Amino acid sequence: MTVKTNSIKINTSKNFEIIDITSQINDLIDIDEGIISIFSKHSTSAIVVNENEKGLLNDLEFMMDNLVLDKFSYQHDRIDNNARSHLKSFLLSSSECLPIKNNKLDLGTWQSVFFIELDGPRHKRTVTLTMVGE
Amino acid sequence: MTVKTNSIKINTSKNFEIIDITSQINDLIDIDEGIISIFSKHSTSAIVVNENEKGLLNDLEFMMDNLVLDKFSYQHDRIDNNARSHLKSFLLSSSECLPIKNNKLDLGTWQSVFFIELDGPRHKRTVTLTMVGE
Amino acid sequence: MTVKTNSIKINTSKNFEIIDITSQINDLIDIDEGIISIFSKHSTSAIVVNENEKGLLNDLEFMMDNLVLDKFSYQHDRIDNNARSHLKSFLLSSSECLPIKNNKLDLGTWQSVFFIELDGPRHKRTVTLTMVGE
Repeated sequence: MTVKTNSIKINTSKNFEIIDITSQINDLIDIDEGIISIFSKHSTSAIVVNENEKGLLNDLEFMMDNLVLDKFSYQHDRIDNNARSHLKSFLLSSSECLPIKNNKLDLGTWQSVFFIELDGPRHKRTVTLTMVGE
Repeated sequence: MTVKTNSIKINTSKNFEIIDITSQINDLIDIDEGIISIFSKHSTSAIVVNENEKGLLNDLEFMMDNLVLDKFSYQHDRIDNNARSHLKSFLLSSSECLPIKNNKLDLGTWQSVFFIELDGPRHKRTVTLTMVGE
Repeated sequence: MTVKTNSIKINTSKNFEIIDITSQINDLIDIDEGIISIFSKHSTSAIVVNENEKGLLNDLEFMMDNLVLDKFSYQHDRIDNNARSHLKSFLLSSSECLPIKNNKLDLGTWQSVFFIELDGPRHKRTVTLTMVGE
């Protein structure tokens, strides 16, 4: 049994951007079997698991804009003009804890892991990977 | 310290269906203390923790239909007619990582673990269980 | 490699209340590196990670009230008059699984861990901490 850690740096180019990080994570896995924490160190981003289909990812952006409406006045916007980015992050969550099997993420056929930028563009977003297993 | 893995197969009979899998998980736990990753390998399903009360579970179905409205045209529906199922899965998440104590899930009195079918009926949905502990 | 467990007791004084528990968790971490499960044993509460800014936390309360509307009649309210508290908990989730590094939560600069009371005031809410690592 061991703990291994690593991290991914991501540059984003749009305000809302969904980036598939599955293969980057798989390349950095160095245990055979166990659990991996995938954690974004930013409160205006998210880590999610779902299908990598372009239309669906556009639908996600559309849905999030409908759930966190821009017709309201948010208090956080007096400090920093990104309240809606934080609020979307609360709903989508900044981490996932997933199974590892045979030295890879043990995902289903139609599943990928995504980093979601909610307040870009940004330079060097950091996602930490913490693996526990053997 | 050890890693143990197992899985549950679930057949669903409705389009939206909530199934309590707490006792099935407890029967498959074979460590005494640690953490368990409960992960659905499908992007139109979810794993959640809450109270097993029939009225509340109906309220959850109602709320999800109100959050992911069917009055919009979703791009993913051109590919596969289940965009709303995926979008609900983004909001509810396909995994939970929970504590194990005394060879069982360490839940509160009013908590159960549920598999939520969001695009059924389906045959042999797979939920993986990955335990790390001792 | 080892498993360590601990817990936090929280008294809340309002119906909706957000409490920063980051430093309490850090005080109870007794591994150097690994993963921690932070789990609330209550189905009308949540554990989330985001920025500790007073205006933003008010915005979160406002958003949750807009997502889980009180204009509807919920079935669970016939049993116990707190359906909306449970429904908010489904959306925010009752747990987080986070990385530990150098004997502390490995959070970003603008991140804190919060316990969210969704049906207070309550006495002795319990949050369990389960650490796996070395």
